[in-house]
Amino acid sequence: MHLVAIGGSDAGISAGLRAREVDPDCEVTLVLADAYPNFSICGIPYYVSGEVTHWRNLAHRTFADLEAAGLGLRLDTTAHRIDVAARKLLVTGPDGGEELLAYDQLVVGTGAVPVRPPIAGLGVLGPGDGVHLLHSMGDTFAVMRTLTEASPGSAVIVGAGYIGLEMADALTVRGLKVAQMEQLPEVLPTVDPQLGALVQAELATHGVEVLTGTAVQAIRRAAPGEPGRLYVEAVTADGEKVGRAADMVLVVVGVRPETALAATAGARLGVRGAIAVDRGMRTALPAVFAAGDCVVTHHRLLGETYLPLGTTAHKQGRVAGENALGGHREFPGSLGTQVVKIFDQAAARTGLRDHEAAAAGFDPVTIAAEADDHKAYYPGSHRIAMRFTGDRATSRLLGVQLFGHRHAEVAKRIDIAATAIFHGMTVDGLSDLDLSYTPPLGSPWDAVQMGAQAWVRDGPVSTQLPT
Amino acid sequence: MHLVAIGGSDAGISAGLRAREVDPDCEVTLVLADAYPNFSICGIPYYVSGEVTHWRNLAHRTFADLEAAGLGLRLDTTAHRIDVAARKLLVTGPDGGEELLAYDQLVVGTGAVPVRPPIAGLGVLGPGDGVHLLHSMGDTFAVMRTLTEASPGSAVIVGAGYIGLEMADALTVRGLKVAQMEQLPEVLPTVDPQLGALVQAELATHGVEVLTGTAVQAIRRAAPGEPGRLYVEAVTADGEKVGRAADMVLVVVGVRPETALAATAGARLGVRGAIAVDRGMRTALPAVFAAGDCVVTHHRLLGETYLPLGTTAHKQGRVAGENALGGHREFPGSLGTQVVKIFDQAAARTGLRDHEAAAAGFDPVTIAAEADDHKAYYPGSHRIAMRFTGDRATSRLLGVQLFGHRHAEVAKRIDIAATAIFHGMTVDGLSDLDLSYTPPLGSPWDAVQMGAQAWVRDGPVSTQLPT
Repeated sequence: MHLVAIGGSDAGISAGLRAREVDPDCEVTLVLADAYPNFSICGIPYYVSGEVTHWRNLAHRTFADLEAAGLGLRLDTTAHRIDVAARKLLVTGPDGGEELLAYDQLVVGTGAVPVRPPIAGLGVLGPGDGVHLLHSMGDTFAVMRTLTEASPGSAVIVGAGYIGLEMADALTVRGLKVAQMEQLPEVLPTVDPQLGALVQAELATHGVEVLTGTAVQAIRRAAPGEPGRLYVEAVTADGEKVGRAADMVLVVVGVRPETALAATAGARLGVRGAIAVDRGMRTALPAVFAAGDCVVTHHRLLGETYLPLGTTAHKQGRVAGENALGGHREFPGSLGTQVVKIFDQAAARTGLRDHEAAAAGFDPVTIAAEADDHKAYYPGSHRIAMRFTGDRATSRLLGVQLFGHRHAEVAKRIDIAATAIFHGMTVDGLSDLDLSYTPPLGSPWDAVQMGAQAWVRDGPVSTQLPT
Repeated sequence: MHLVAIGGSDAGISAGLRAREVDPDCEVTLVLADAYPNFSICGIPYYVSGEVTHWRNLAHRTFADLEAAGLGLRLDTTAHRIDVAARKLLVTGPDGGEELLAYDQLVVGTGAVPVRPPIAGLGVLGPGDGVHLLHSMGDTFAVMRTLTEASPGSAVIVGAGYIGLEMADALTVRGLKVAQMEQLPEVLPTVDPQLGALVQAELATHGVEVLTGTAVQAIRRAAPGEPGRLYVEAVTADGEKVGRAADMVLVVVGVRPETALAATAGARLGVRGAIAVDRGMRTALPAVFAAGDCVVTHHRLLGETYLPLGTTAHKQGRVAGENALGGHREFPGSLGTQVVKIFDQAAARTGLRDHEAAAAGFDPVTIAAEADDHKAYYPGSHRIAMRFTGDRATSRLLGVQLFGHRHAEVAKRIDIAATAIFHGMTVDGLSDLDLSYTPPLGSPWDAVQMGAQAWVRDGPVSTQLPT
């Protein structure tokens, strides 16, 4: 049995490792376009900030770890064509020579690529000018070259999603003056605007200038006499022109699935153009699995969607690796559980927001609540802002959003909610959970239970006697 | 409708508040033996340490809050006899006068009292001598008088359970030299000895002298010429005599249910002599409910047990209050979820340990594992020591124990496990949960998922293909 996985990030590596776990005699070859297998892409902002001192530390596992686990690594090797009928993969190696790799089973983990928005100048200016996209280790090294060689004093970040926010944090920590431009009315558009406003306040506290409702139209070199190296031109929702000078510009406005290889081989595409797979991570092609940021995401509440996340890629890769060897595992589905640290605060979500739930056919009710992370009488307590979404008719818990201090255990509190949603609990049911309590670390009713009780009290469900 | 609740702590208050929520016209009277309604008994160590600066801050709600919520409070009022047939409660008020309180429904929340171990001298010496039990606010004031008036430089703490450990922390923070004596072979006997040893190491790091396997036999006044004010005599498991001088002694070896009032009225008693109740918190007596530390605990994996915890008392009180007004709520059951902070570390557990599971008829397998609280490349990561217990035949997750830094989100991680056990998940099933990830706050597989994967790998279940 020879399993070939294309891609050396979460999905490909997980598939290979799982295959070796299931059958230690299985031969596994990983084909990587670059030389950075199993790197933590999510960790890039912390390398840029200087908090991670060497890029090698971003590796989840070293080259040696991976070889010891029995994974054969083909670095700097690009996959060009899948010959589905012959079960062969055409690749170009580091020396440029073509080769046909025979496989018994194939896992496509080609991931995603950054969206390149229609901004004038973005096709002309590049890393050498201090204009960057950011997704791969190669992109990272380019950013680091700009930072170390051009010593920029200021940056404009285009986009205020997860990566944009983390990079605003990172570049500020590094000493740059950062302006962040976001086309939508609020930063972190994946949470409700009420929490986005709290994120924006945290950015402002740390000196980041935030321009929301601001669509970037052009990036150009600074004219002689203008401050900075570059100039970013944008327009507000009211049609007003705004601009900011900066020594570097980072464009991070999301990703799209990288599907050319699979599509050319005949794989069916689905939502948002991602590779269509069943819950066993099988494509429509025989002996070809796909996993990670390049495939559609099964969401437990939405069905098929596209929601690229590292956690999901790990799970899907594991399923693909197991099933490639004859297993019958199914990807259990995503709830879109996410957390992001912004300076000293964290924002997290799981499940659906109100409008997402409504679009999915629920009749959602969303309420806001607040609670302390631990008993306020014990020093160092923090308020957690919460939003709870439940279904009016069934009281089913549909989604939770949290915002609070990075030491307020927001990340693992969202995981309690994620576990509850996984099991289809009602909002009221959260109060039945036996959660831990000690005054320095919690409350007799945990914050998420207090949020649930607020939903029951203020939401659509009578507090009168249930039967 | 007149609801009378006996006891002003978690159970009684929760019952009263829930009754008023369910029916705002309901009259609620709380009968308290002292003047401290709704005080956080779990917070006492942090008042003793000085971290909570005023005892009034320990109130979950103020007197005014409680009155505003519609609770009538009868302070310094002792309940003496329940006349079940006449639905009347005989009480003595603060002026010593007797009164018969008529009720429609009664909730008994008499709580627990400290166990008084058979230690010579404990009957003779008391707070005035620097020898203390610790459970109530009255006990707390006595301890504080000793601390402020006698300025003790050293303390012996008898017992190393939750309160004993928190008091070792508290008195050390306050500047006392603390010796802790525990009869059992390890501190914190509610977790496995491997984790108890880590707790003991944390105590030692902070200068607490820990003597395990050491049974205290006598407490006496120091003889002339001996250092300190008191002397504690003990014997080791090997029969060796040991002794420690101290300026104060704290005896905290657990609690027993306070049941005299209910038992005299004819209530049936159950496990460990606690008041027997059904899951609706009904005693065997008509119109008499009971909740909190005085009743047997329904455990989701064990059935009837005795496991007094504040979280449980809150839940049970809420059920009693609702059902007293005609509701049909059931106490969902405890999993014994607990967490304790010891200096900079936290230890937590939920569900069953190996020997508890075996005694309950399971065929448990327990494995040890370790994981980082967040990606180790990001500064400030901590290792979490874990123990996972699952059933050999069914792979059902039975229990999890965690030990790690107080900022390692150990408390809320145990809650993820508690939520999983609540839903009867298998150990392997934990890997299906969509948990949050960002490098500063987690890993692509959360620590609890890595522990679960270690159980699957190292435990009894084949890693070969499941079907």
